[in-house]
Amino acid sequence: MKSYRKELLFNTKNRRKLINITPKIEKCLAESGIKEGLLLCNAMHITASVFINDDESGLHNDFENWLEKLAPEKPYSQYRHNGFEDNADAHLKRTIMGREVVVAITNGILDFGPWEQIFYGEFDGKRSKRVLVKIIGE
Amino acid sequence: MKSYRKELLFNTKNRRKLINITPKIEKCLAESGIKEGLLLCNAMHITASVFINDDESGLHNDFENWLEKLAPEKPYSQYRHNGFEDNADAHLKRTIMGREVVVAITNGILDFGPWEQIFYGEFDGKRSKRVLVKIIGE
Amino acid sequence: MKSYRKELLFNTKNRRKLINITPKIEKCLAESGIKEGLLLCNAMHITASVFINDDESGLHNDFENWLEKLAPEKPYSQYRHNGFEDNADAHLKRTIMGREVVVAITNGILDFGPWEQIFYGEFDGKRSKRVLVKIIGE
Repeated sequence: MKSYRKELLFNTKNRRKLINITPKIEKCLAESGIKEGLLLCNAMHITASVFINDDESGLHNDFENWLEKLAPEKPYSQYRHNGFEDNADAHLKRTIMGREVVVAITNGILDFGPWEQIFYGEFDGKRSKRVLVKIIGE
Repeated sequence: MKSYRKELLFNTKNRRKLINITPKIEKCLAESGIKEGLLLCNAMHITASVFINDDESGLHNDFENWLEKLAPEKPYSQYRHNGFEDNADAHLKRTIMGREVVVAITNGILDFGPWEQIFYGEFDGKRSKRVLVKIIGE
Repeated sequence: MKSYRKELLFNTKNRRKLINITPKIEKCLAESGIKEGLLLCNAMHITASVFINDDESGLHNDFENWLEKLAPEKPYSQYRHNGFEDNADAHLKRTIMGREVVVAITNGILDFGPWEQIFYGEFDGKRSKRVLVKIIGE
Protein backbone atom coordinates (compact mmCIF):
# COMPACT_ATOMS: atom_id res chain seq x y z
CA MET A 1 0.00 0.00 0.00
CA LYS A 2 1.23 3.47 -0.89
CA SER A 3 0.17 6.62 0.89
CA TYR A 4 0.49 10.30 0.02
CA ARG A 5 -0.16 13.48 2.01
CA LYS A 6 -0.23 17.14 1.07
CA GLU A 7 -1.53 20.36 2.59
CA LEU A 8 -3.02 23.08 0.39
CA LEU A 9 -3.05 26.66 1.67
CA PHE A 10 -5.77 29.28 1.23
CA ASN A 11 -6.09 32.89 2.31
CA THR A 12 -9.16 34.53 0.82
CA LYS A 13 -9.71 38.29 0.63
CA ASN A 14 -13.38 37.94 1.48
CA ARG A 15 -15.15 36.26 4.40
CA ARG A 16 -16.85 33.78 2.06
CA LYS A 17 -15.55 32.27 -1.17
CA LEU A 18 -15.92 29.09 -3.24
CA ILE A 19 -12.74 27.97 -5.05
CA ASN A 20 -12.47 25.14 -7.60
CA ILE A 21 -9.51 23.08 -6.37
CA THR A 22 -9.85 20.19 -8.83
CA PRO A 23 -6.63 21.07 -10.74
CA LYS A 24 -4.67 21.15 -7.45
CA ILE A 25 -6.07 17.76 -6.43
CA GLU A 26 -5.23 16.29 -9.84
CA LYS A 27 -1.66 17.53 -9.41
CA CYS A 28 -1.46 15.83 -5.99
CA LEU A 29 -2.76 12.59 -7.49
CA ALA A 30 -0.16 12.69 -10.28
CA GLU A 31 2.60 13.33 -7.71
CA SER A 32 1.44 10.38 -5.61
CA GLY A 33 1.82 7.87 -8.44
CA ILE A 34 -1.22 6.01 -7.06
CA LYS A 35 -3.36 4.32 -9.72
CA GLU A 36 -6.03 2.50 -7.67
CA GLY A 37 -7.34 3.61 -4.29
CA LEU A 38 -9.21 6.27 -2.37
CA LEU A 39 -8.52 9.99 -2.04
CA LEU A 40 -9.66 11.95 1.02
CA CYS A 41 -9.78 15.74 0.80
CA ASN A 42 -10.91 17.64 3.89
CA ALA A 43 -10.89 21.12 5.35
CA MET A 44 -8.53 21.22 8.35
CA HIS A 45 -10.53 24.13 9.80
CA ILE A 46 -14.04 23.88 11.19
CA THR A 47 -15.39 26.99 9.47
CA ALA A 48 -14.55 25.75 5.98
CA SER A 49 -15.74 22.97 3.71
CA VAL A 50 -14.62 20.70 0.90
CA PHE A 51 -17.49 19.59 -1.34
CA ILE A 52 -18.28 18.43 -4.87
CA ASN A 53 -20.71 20.25 -7.11
CA ASP A 54 -20.97 22.26 -10.33
CA ASP A 55 -18.55 25.01 -11.44
CA GLU A 56 -21.30 27.44 -12.42
CA SER A 57 -21.33 31.01 -11.12
CA GLY A 58 -25.13 31.27 -10.94
CA LEU A 59 -25.25 28.21 -8.71
CA HIS A 60 -22.48 29.59 -6.51
CA ASN A 61 -24.56 32.73 -6.06
CA ASP A 62 -27.51 30.50 -5.12
CA PHE A 63 -25.35 28.70 -2.53
CA GLU A 64 -24.43 32.05 -0.97
CA ASN A 65 -28.05 33.20 -0.72
CA TRP A 66 -29.30 29.81 0.46
CA LEU A 67 -26.67 29.43 3.19
CA GLU A 68 -27.35 32.97 4.39
CA LYS A 69 -31.03 32.03 4.67
CA LEU A 70 -30.36 28.76 6.54
CA ALA A 71 -27.59 30.14 8.80
CA PRO A 72 -27.41 33.95 8.61
CA GLU A 73 -24.17 35.71 9.53
CA LYS A 74 -25.95 38.59 11.29
CA PRO A 75 -27.03 39.65 13.81
CA TYR A 76 -23.96 38.19 15.50
CA SER A 77 -25.75 38.26 18.84
CA GLN A 78 -28.17 35.48 17.77
CA TYR A 79 -25.44 32.89 18.42
CA ARG A 80 -24.03 31.89 21.81
CA HIS A 81 -20.69 31.05 20.17
CA ASN A 82 -20.23 34.72 19.27
CA GLY A 83 -18.78 35.96 22.54
CA PHE A 84 -15.20 36.65 21.53
CA GLU A 85 -15.76 35.51 17.93
CA ASP A 86 -18.25 36.36 15.17
CA ASN A 87 -18.09 33.17 13.12
CA ALA A 88 -20.82 30.88 14.52
CA ASP A 89 -22.62 31.10 11.16
CA ALA A 90 -19.49 29.75 9.45
CA HIS A 91 -19.55 26.62 11.65
CA LEU A 92 -23.19 26.04 10.63
CA LYS A 93 -22.66 26.78 6.93
CA ARG A 94 -19.74 24.34 6.82
CA THR A 95 -21.98 21.71 8.46
CA ILE A 96 -24.47 22.03 5.59
CA MET A 97 -21.75 21.90 2.91
CA GLY A 98 -19.68 19.12 4.54
CA ARG A 99 -16.12 18.77 5.82
CA GLU A 100 -14.73 16.27 3.35
CA VAL A 101 -15.04 14.29 0.16
CA VAL A 102 -13.82 10.78 -0.60
CA VAL A 103 -13.08 10.15 -4.28
CA ALA A 104 -12.34 6.87 -6.05
CA ILE A 105 -9.03 6.68 -7.91
CA THR A 106 -9.18 4.46 -11.00
CA ASN A 107 -6.41 4.12 -13.60
CA GLY A 108 -4.61 7.04 -12.01
CA ILE A 109 -7.39 9.62 -12.35
CA LEU A 110 -10.23 11.03 -10.24
CA ASP A 111 -13.13 8.69 -11.04
CA PHE A 112 -15.71 11.43 -11.63
CA GLY A 113 -19.01 11.87 -13.39
CA PRO A 114 -19.29 14.50 -16.16
CA TRP A 115 -19.74 17.63 -14.01
CA GLU A 116 -18.13 16.75 -10.69
CA GLN A 117 -15.64 19.36 -9.47
CA ILE A 118 -14.06 19.69 -6.02
CA PHE A 119 -14.49 23.01 -4.20
CA TYR A 120 -12.98 24.64 -1.18
CA GLY A 121 -15.73 26.51 0.62
CA GLU A 122 -14.45 29.31 2.82
CA PHE A 123 -16.96 30.75 5.31
CA ASP A 124 -14.63 32.68 7.62
CA GLY A 125 -11.70 33.80 5.53
CA LYS A 126 -9.21 36.68 5.51
CA ARG A 127 -6.63 34.42 7.19
CA SER A 128 -4.45 31.45 6.33
CA LYS A 129 -6.25 28.10 6.30
CA ARG A 130 -5.41 24.58 5.18
CA VAL A 131 -6.90 21.65 3.25
CA LEU A 132 -5.56 18.11 3.60
CA VAL A 133 -5.18 15.68 0.70
CA LYS A 134 -4.53 12.06 1.67
CA ILE A 135 -4.39 9.23 -0.86
CA ILE A 136 -3.99 5.52 -0.15
CA GLY A 137 -3.75 2.73 -2.69
CA GLU A 138 -1.33 1.20 -5.16
CA MET B 1 -4.60 -4.66 -1.88
CA LYS B 2 -7.55 -5.52 -4.10
CA SER B 3 -9.80 -2.95 -5.73
CA TYR B 4 -13.21 -3.20 -7.39
CA ARG B 5 -15.25 -0.73 -9.44
CA LYS B 6 -18.79 -0.80 -10.77
CA GLU B 7 -21.28 1.72 -12.14
CA LEU B 8 -24.98 1.41 -11.37
CA LEU B 9 -27.49 3.04 -13.74
CA PHE B 10 -30.73 4.79 -12.84
CA ASN B 11 -33.44 6.44 -14.93
CA THR B 12 -36.40 7.47 -12.79
CA LYS B 13 -39.85 8.28 -14.19
CA ASN B 14 -40.30 11.14 -11.74
CA ARG B 15 -38.17 14.18 -11.00
CA ARG B 16 -37.56 13.01 -7.42
CA LYS B 17 -37.27 9.47 -6.09
CA LEU B 18 -35.57 7.58 -3.26
CA ILE B 19 -34.43 4.03 -4.15
CA ASN B 20 -33.04 1.42 -1.75
CA ILE B 21 -29.85 0.20 -3.46
CA THR B 22 -28.55 -1.98 -0.61
CA PRO B 23 -29.14 -5.27 -2.49
CA LYS B 24 -27.20 -3.95 -5.51
CA ILE B 25 -24.31 -2.86 -3.28
CA GLU B 26 -24.27 -6.25 -1.54
CA LYS B 27 -24.05 -7.91 -4.97
CA CYS B 28 -21.08 -5.69 -5.88
CA LEU B 29 -19.37 -6.59 -2.61
CA ALA B 30 -19.86 -10.33 -3.24
CA GLU B 31 -18.46 -9.93 -6.79
CA SER B 32 -15.41 -8.10 -5.44
CA GLY B 33 -14.37 -10.93 -3.15
CA ILE B 34 -13.11 -8.31 -0.66
CA LYS B 35 -13.47 -9.33 3.00
CA GLU B 36 -11.85 -6.41 4.87
CA GLY B 37 -11.75 -2.82 3.68
CA LEU B 38 -13.75 0.27 2.81
CA LEU B 39 -16.56 0.71 0.29
CA LEU B 40 -17.25 4.10 -1.29
CA CYS B 41 -20.61 4.64 -2.98
CA ASN B 42 -21.24 8.05 -4.58
CA ALA B 43 -23.57 9.73 -7.00
CA MET B 44 -21.66 10.62 -10.18
CA HIS B 45 -24.11 13.45 -10.87
CA ILE B 46 -24.38 16.64 -8.86
CA THR B 47 -28.17 16.67 -8.61
CA ALA B 48 -28.35 13.25 -6.95
CA SER B 49 -27.32 11.77 -3.63
CA VAL B 50 -26.25 8.54 -1.98
CA PHE B 51 -27.13 8.38 1.71
CA ILE B 52 -27.91 5.97 4.53
CA ASN B 53 -31.16 6.05 6.45
CA ASP B 54 -34.34 4.07 7.15
CA ASP B 55 -36.41 2.19 4.54
CA GLU B 56 -39.74 3.54 5.80
CA SER B 57 -42.22 5.16 3.43
CA GLY B 58 -43.52 7.69 5.98
CA LEU B 59 -39.98 8.96 6.55
CA HIS B 60 -39.39 9.18 2.79
CA ASN B 61 -42.49 11.33 2.54
CA ASP B 62 -41.09 13.50 5.36
CA PHE B 63 -37.77 13.87 3.46
CA GLU B 64 -39.69 15.07 0.38
CA ASN B 65 -41.65 17.68 2.32
CA TRP B 66 -38.65 18.79 4.36
CA LEU B 67 -36.34 19.21 1.35
CA GLU B 68 -39.05 21.14 -0.47
CA LYS B 69 -39.24 23.46 2.54
CA LEU B 70 -35.45 23.94 2.80
CA ALA B 71 -34.82 24.21 -0.97
CA PRO B 72 -38.09 24.59 -2.90
CA GLU B 73 -38.21 23.60 -6.57
CA LYS B 74 -40.45 26.55 -7.55
CA PRO B 75 -40.59 29.31 -8.49
CA TYR B 76 -37.68 28.47 -10.78
CA SER B 77 -36.85 32.17 -11.07
CA GLN B 78 -35.71 32.37 -7.44
CA TYR B 79 -32.38 30.75 -8.43
CA ARG B 80 -29.65 32.32 -10.57
CA HIS B 81 -28.63 28.86 -11.81
CA ASN B 82 -32.00 28.50 -13.56
CA GLY B 83 -31.21 30.36 -16.77
CA PHE B 84 -31.16 27.49 -19.24
CA GLU B 85 -31.89 24.87 -16.57
CA ASP B 86 -34.56 24.41 -13.88
CA ASN B 87 -32.68 22.20 -11.43
CA ALA B 88 -30.96 24.56 -8.96
CA ASP B 89 -33.11 23.12 -6.17
CA ALA B 90 -31.76 19.64 -6.97
CA HIS B 91 -28.18 20.84 -6.41
CA LEU B 92 -29.22 22.20 -3.00
CA LYS B 93 -31.28 19.15 -2.01
CA ARG B 94 -28.37 16.87 -2.86
CA THR B 95 -26.11 19.05 -0.71
CA ILE B 96 -28.36 18.43 2.31
CA MET B 97 -28.58 14.68 1.66
CA GLY B 98 -24.89 14.20 0.77
CA ARG B 99 -22.96 12.93 -2.25
CA GLU B 100 -21.47 9.75 -0.85
CA VAL B 101 -21.25 7.15 1.86
CA VAL B 102 -18.22 5.22 3.07
CA VAL B 103 -19.04 1.83 4.59
CA ALA B 104 -16.80 -0.54 6.53
CA ILE B 105 -16.42 -4.06 5.09
CA THR B 106 -15.91 -6.71 7.77
CA ASN B 107 -15.90 -10.47 7.15
CA GLY B 108 -17.15 -9.88 3.62
CA ILE B 109 -20.33 -7.99 4.54
CA LEU B 110 -21.49 -4.37 4.90
CA ASP B 111 -20.72 -3.58 8.55
CA PHE B 112 -24.08 -2.01 9.33
CA GLY B 113 -26.22 -1.23 12.35
CA PRO B 114 -29.72 -2.75 12.55
CA TRP B 115 -31.59 -0.29 10.31
CA GLU B 116 -28.94 1.11 8.01
CA GLN B 117 -29.88 0.95 4.32
CA ILE B 118 -28.21 2.70 1.38
CA PHE B 119 -30.37 4.93 -0.81
CA TYR B 120 -29.99 6.59 -4.16
CA GLY B 121 -31.66 10.00 -3.93
CA GLU B 122 -32.71 11.38 -7.30
CA PHE B 123 -33.63 15.07 -7.36
CA ASP B 124 -33.57 15.75 -11.12
CA GLY B 125 -34.52 12.52 -12.81
CA LYS B 126 -36.24 11.45 -16.06
CA ARG B 127 -32.80 10.78 -17.58
CA SER B 128 -29.98 8.26 -17.30
CA LYS B 129 -27.71 8.79 -14.30
CA ARG B 130 -24.92 6.82 -12.63
CA VAL B 131 -23.71 5.77 -9.18
CA LEU B 132 -20.14 4.60 -8.55
CA VAL B 133 -19.20 1.72 -6.26
CA LYS B 134 -15.51 1.46 -5.39
CA ILE B 135 -14.16 -1.06 -2.89
CA ILE B 136 -10.58 -1.37 -1.66
CA GLY B 137 -9.22 -3.94 0.75
CA GLU B 138 -8.23 -7.57 0.93
CA MET C 1 -2.85 -4.08 4.66
CA LYS C 2 -3.98 -4.10 8.28
CA SER C 3 -7.53 -3.55 9.41
CA TYR C 4 -9.07 -2.76 12.80
CA ARG C 5 -12.67 -2.66 14.02
CA LYS C 6 -14.26 -1.51 17.26
CA GLU C 7 -17.74 -0.60 18.45
CA LEU C 8 -18.27 2.21 20.94
CA LEU C 9 -21.42 2.21 23.08
CA PHE C 10 -23.51 5.19 24.15
CA ASN C 11 -26.63 5.53 26.27
CA THR C 12 -27.50 9.17 26.93
CA LYS C 13 -29.83 10.36 29.67
CA ASN C 14 -31.35 13.00 27.43
CA ARG C 15 -32.97 12.78 24.01
CA ARG C 16 -30.26 14.97 22.46
CA LYS C 17 -26.58 15.21 23.39
CA LEU C 18 -23.23 16.03 21.76
CA ILE C 19 -20.26 14.02 23.12
CA ASN C 20 -16.58 14.58 22.27
CA ILE C 21 -15.31 11.09 21.35
CA THR C 22 -11.83 12.12 20.15
CA PRO C 23 -10.04 10.47 23.11
CA LYS C 24 -11.86 7.18 22.47
CA ILE C 25 -10.94 7.29 18.78
CA GLU C 26 -7.31 8.02 19.61
CA LYS C 27 -7.30 5.00 21.89
CA CYS C 28 -8.68 2.84 19.05
CA LEU C 29 -5.99 4.14 16.72
CA ALA C 30 -3.24 3.33 19.23
CA GLU C 31 -4.67 -0.19 19.68
CA SER C 32 -4.72 -0.73 15.92
CA GLY C 33 -1.02 -0.08 15.49
CA ILE C 34 -1.80 1.49 12.10
CA LYS C 35 0.54 4.35 11.12
CA GLU C 36 -0.65 5.31 7.62
CA GLY C 37 -4.17 4.93 6.34
CA LEU C 38 -7.79 6.00 6.65
CA LEU C 39 -10.11 5.88 9.66
CA LEU C 40 -13.88 5.66 9.24
CA CYS C 41 -16.09 6.53 12.20
CA ASN C 42 -19.86 6.26 11.73
CA ALA C 43 -23.05 6.12 13.72
CA MET C 44 -24.58 2.63 13.39
CA HIS C 45 -28.03 4.09 14.09
CA ILE C 46 -29.96 6.34 11.74
CA THR C 47 -31.02 8.88 14.36
CA ALA C 48 -27.45 9.69 15.42
CA SER C 49 -24.47 11.36 13.84
CA VAL C 50 -20.68 11.42 13.89
CA PHE C 51 -19.23 14.78 12.86
CA ILE C 52 -16.20 17.02 13.29
CA ASN C 53 -16.43 20.51 14.72
CA ASP C 54 -15.41 22.67 17.68
CA ASP C 55 -15.55 21.62 21.36
CA GLU C 56 -17.16 24.86 22.52
CA SER C 57 -20.31 24.85 24.65
CA GLY C 58 -21.75 28.03 23.12
CA LEU C 59 -21.53 26.51 19.65
CA HIS C 60 -23.15 23.29 20.87
CA ASN C 61 -26.03 25.37 22.18
CA ASP C 62 -26.24 27.04 18.75
CA PHE C 63 -26.35 23.62 17.06
CA GLU C 64 -29.28 22.61 19.31
CA ASN C 65 -31.27 25.77 18.52
CA TRP C 66 -30.41 25.66 14.82
CA LEU C 67 -31.37 22.01 14.36
CA GLU C 68 -34.63 22.60 16.22
CA LYS C 69 -35.35 25.42 13.80
CA LEU C 70 -34.50 23.37 10.68
CA ALA C 71 -36.15 20.14 11.86
CA PRO C 72 -38.32 20.72 14.97
CA GLU C 73 -39.08 17.81 17.26
CA LYS C 74 -42.68 18.95 17.89
CA PRO C 75 -45.49 18.78 17.05
CA TYR C 76 -44.88 15.06 16.44
CA SER C 77 -47.90 14.95 14.13
CA GLN C 78 -46.16 17.07 11.48
CA TYR C 79 -44.21 13.99 10.34
CA ARG C 80 -45.64 10.93 8.58
CA HIS C 81 -42.91 8.76 10.14
CA ASN C 82 -44.38 9.43 13.59
CA GLY C 83 -47.08 6.79 13.62
CA PHE C 84 -45.69 4.36 16.19
CA GLU C 85 -42.54 6.44 16.76
CA ASP C 86 -41.81 10.07 17.64
CA ASN C 87 -38.30 10.41 16.23
CA ALA C 88 -38.73 11.66 12.64
CA ASP C 89 -36.95 14.89 13.61
CA ALA C 90 -33.94 12.84 14.73
CA HIS C 91 -33.63 11.28 11.26
CA LEU C 92 -33.64 14.78 9.74
CA LYS C 93 -31.24 16.29 12.28
CA ARG C 94 -28.78 13.45 11.71
CA THR C 95 -29.02 14.10 7.95
CA ILE C 96 -27.89 17.70 8.48
CA MET C 97 -25.04 16.70 10.81
CA GLY C 98 -23.90 13.66 8.77
CA ARG C 99 -23.54 9.92 9.45
CA GLU C 100 -19.78 9.56 9.29
CA VAL C 101 -16.33 11.07 9.13
CA VAL C 102 -13.25 9.81 7.32
CA VAL C 103 -9.96 10.92 8.87
CA ALA C 104 -6.42 10.60 7.51
CA ILE C 105 -3.95 8.67 9.66
CA THR C 106 -0.37 9.98 9.35
CA ASN C 107 2.55 8.85 11.50
CA GLY C 108 0.14 7.01 13.78
CA ILE C 109 -2.03 10.00 14.72
CA LEU C 110 -5.30 11.60 13.60
CA ASP C 111 -4.16 14.07 10.93
CA PHE C 112 -6.19 17.02 12.21
CA GLY C 113 -6.19 20.77 11.96
CA PRO C 114 -5.87 22.83 15.17
CA TRP C 115 -9.49 22.68 16.37
CA GLU C 116 -10.88 19.50 14.83
CA GLN C 117 -12.61 17.23 17.34
CA ILE C 118 -14.87 14.22 16.63
CA PHE C 119 -18.35 14.24 18.14
CA TYR C 120 -21.10 11.73 18.62
CA GLY C 121 -24.40 13.51 18.02
CA GLU C 122 -27.33 11.78 19.69
CA PHE C 123 -30.77 12.93 18.55
CA ASP C 124 -32.96 10.13 19.94
CA GLY C 125 -31.22 8.85 23.05
CA LYS C 126 -32.23 7.24 26.34
CA ARG C 127 -31.28 3.82 24.90
CA SER C 128 -28.17 1.89 23.96
CA LYS C 129 -26.63 2.88 20.64
CA ARG C 130 -23.40 2.12 18.82
CA VAL C 131 -20.64 3.84 16.83
CA LEU C 132 -18.31 1.95 14.51
CA VAL C 133 -14.59 2.65 14.17
CA LYS C 134 -12.87 0.99 11.20
CA ILE C 135 -9.25 1.66 10.30
CA ILE C 136 -7.35 0.35 7.27
CA GLY C 137 -3.71 0.93 6.42
CA GLU C 138 -0.24 -0.17 7.43
